[in-house]
Amino acid sequence: MSTSATGSYTESPYTVPTRNKKRAAYDRETVHAILDAGYVCHLGFVRDGRPVVLPTLYGRVGDRLYVHGSTGSRPLNTAQRDAGLPVCLTVTHVDALVLARSAFHHSVNYRSVVVHGVATPVTDPVEKAEALDALVDHVLPGRAADSRPANDKELAATAVLALDLEEVSAKARTGGPNDDPEDESLPYWSGLLPVGVVHGEPVPAEGLDPAVAAPDYLTSPGRP
Amino acid sequence: MSTSATGSYTESPYTVPTRNKKRAAYDRETVHAILDAGYVCHLGFVRDGRPVVLPTLYGRVGDRLYVHGSTGSRPLNTAQRDAGLPVCLTVTHVDALVLARSAFHHSVNYRSVVVHGVATPVTDPVEKAEALDALVDHVLPGRAADSRPANDKELAATAVLALDLEEVSAKARTGGPNDDPEDESLPYWSGLLPVGVVHGEPVPAEGLDPAVAAPDYLTSPGRP
Repeated sequence: MSTSATGSYTESPYTVPTRNKKRAAYDRETVHAILDAGYVCHLGFVRDGRPVVLPTLYGRVGDRLYVHGSTGSRPLNTAQRDAGLPVCLTVTHVDALVLARSAFHHSVNYRSVVVHGVATPVTDPVEKAEALDALVDHVLPGRAADSRPANDKELAATAVLALDLEEVSAKARTGGPNDDPEDESLPYWSGLLPVGVVHGEPVPAEGLDPAVAAPDYLTSPGRP
Repeated sequence: MSTSATGSYTESPYTVPTRNKKRAAYDRETVHAILDAGYVCHLGFVRDGRPVVLPTLYGRVGDRLYVHGSTGSRPLNTAQRDAGLPVCLTVTHVDALVLARSAFHHSVNYRSVVVHGVATPVTDPVEKAEALDALVDHVLPGRAADSRPANDKELAATAVLALDLEEVSAKARTGGPNDDPEDESLPYWSGLLPVGVVHGEPVPAEGLDPAVAAPDYLTSPGRP
């Protein structure tokens, strides 16, 4: 999360889609809004020439994303050994199911961001601490300051990778179904079924002191 | 979606995690349940030696997954040209945010499935039609039969890839936070914040005949 930003990312052969080019966007405001509406990304990298895709958390500070993990995990280990790991980091939100009269024109309204780049280990202790705060606050804004910060042992056990937002694009579909005109009188229901993410009631941990009230940031609505 | 299944998938060096091995599972029942609880996957492949991760829909028939797209899209094109595309297909559901007293022990309860394999073009017209039905029904069970089936022109414009469930694993985290004993008296709220996906009210398409009622499958609750 960060201050507002303007301007656009530069298009590259890897960020311009082959299809539905009009659904793509490169401006910072759109890209950052989609990134900030989520906290789970799918991180792709190449292992032995084969693709690997793993879900993981991310945080954003300005034009930089952070992911983290145990120093023993494979991608973080590889990134540290090779001083960088080529990755593709993708974030997707589903907004609606799009039901057309024809099976062919069924679709999904979504927002996604795809980031290409080389993820590099964060070694500066100040940046590392800030990155970890950003990761926690990205999931639940305000939480980092309302928990015990990592100690030296925990910091040493945690690897953080930085990925700069340079080769990046957003893509989104909005609106209703695009049926062929000759299908519009067919007797099938057609339209949108909105999809959203919600938070349930907080469940206190076993042994939590009843005097510790649920903080306000828990009861804010779920992400869009 | 499919009939019930028993037995387990065989473990491989690509499906046994380096960390948290106890969170991994290989039995069909667990793997299929996670796959059937969603419809958006993140498909990873290698392009020019670089990883690419794109969101797309999927369907399941028994031990086989299907993805589809325009014959003009890059991964589908590549798969058809090379008679197969090495992929990693990952499906993730977030169930809860796990708030520990310490920042370090924050986590997420999730269920995920990771499938490694070579996605191959489906050329048999009967299997292709069944795969497309499975894709539509995976998003909204019952919808395929309640829409106009694809005609020959639409079938020709659509490429379908099959990915067999062979090298596959599930991974899940459940339960509350695992704080260090010495942190349990810290004055920070700790516990779970459940996360779920819900469907909103259906929005009829512009021009929909008011005599066409919203079918029952629209008003079923969202996926877990």
